[in-house]
Amino acid sequence: MKKLPLHKAFTLLEPGPVVLITTHDGKQPNIMTISWTMVVDFTPVFAITTGPWNHSFAALRKTKECVIAIPAVDLLDQVVGVGTCSGTDTDKFAQFKLTPLKASKVQAPLIQECLANIECKLIDYNRKHGVVFLQGVAAWLDTARKERRLLHAVGDGTFIADGRKLDRRKAMASKLPAGV
Amino acid sequence: MKKLPLHKAFTLLEPGPVVLITTHDGKQPNIMTISWTMVVDFTPVFAITTGPWNHSFAALRKTKECVIAIPAVDLLDQVVGVGTCSGTDTDKFAQFKLTPLKASKVQAPLIQECLANIECKLIDYNRKHGVVFLQGVAAWLDTARKERRLLHAVGDGTFIADGRKLDRRKAMASKLPAGV
Repeated sequence: MKKLPLHKAFTLLEPGPVVLITTHDGKQPNIMTISWTMVVDFTPVFAITTGPWNHSFAALRKTKECVIAIPAVDLLDQVVGVGTCSGTDTDKFAQFKLTPLKASKVQAPLIQECLANIECKLIDYNRKHGVVFLQGVAAWLDTARKERRLLHAVGDGTFIADGRKLDRRKAMASKLPAGV
Repeated sequence: MKKLPLHKAFTLLEPGPVVLITTHDGKQPNIMTISWTMVVDFTPVFAITTGPWNHSFAALRKTKECVIAIPAVDLLDQVVGVGTCSGTDTDKFAQFKLTPLKASKVQAPLIQECLANIECKLIDYNRKHGVVFLQGVAAWLDTARKERRLLHAVGDGTFIADGRKLDRRKAMASKLPAGV
């Protein structure tokens, strides 16, 4: 994993991929699969929808820290596996052969097998809608990884892999933040 | 456009596509391009990030209504065009040859050329983060449309078209809402 400039980290979530979110409750790390995410600010700030139904939620609220790990398409079965069992009775890192790596600014681990990882601090929580706001504080990209297509959850049990890339940089120039 | 059962409408946004959002301020309709969206509830409730920098925002707050129109990949240049000019001085429907259709429950129009349209009512606004919460009240799908691949914005001026579909319905069964 190589350091990615923080001002570029929003481009990892803007395309709307399904992600893995790690937490650490002080005793052990856990992972949840989340598809309901959104960029809120370029700095970056992200929103995710979660709640007490996720075992990770208690650790996220208590420690106010997590890592958003972005899997590529070759991790689909781990993404589904992580999303269909619970940290209450499963060590998900062991179960799905995922490797926790030490993060730089949070106790929650990076996931080595993922394409990218964003270390985050919880900065706000909208209880009414179950929306957690996260400030990205460090970002990492596996620049050596060959499979870089992201995965999108449809919500009906199917997923879509990234396809063709389409360049509209010139037409979009007036709307892009500096240095992206 | 054929009616889509409301409980399936979240599957249009869950994959994270870039969308067009229409409003109607009482005088004329407008359109904005939005990539910062999230599903918040299956009913469905959606969150979008926007603010006073979008001309549509005033109409959205005043009327508390909008339509989320989901373009397919063949509308990329309209999506970029709509996103890089302003309704203050442009009739975007005319400029980008998009056709407004009467919606059933809101005054904001559907967009005929889009794959799907979701009529929405504004139910909440988080001013601190610029997040608008929308309740979907009717949904429409162009079932005759051949090009159905969605578009994902990366945020750097490039876009990604949907690629391969991957079926994990069996493995995901325990986590899917009924009837999706």
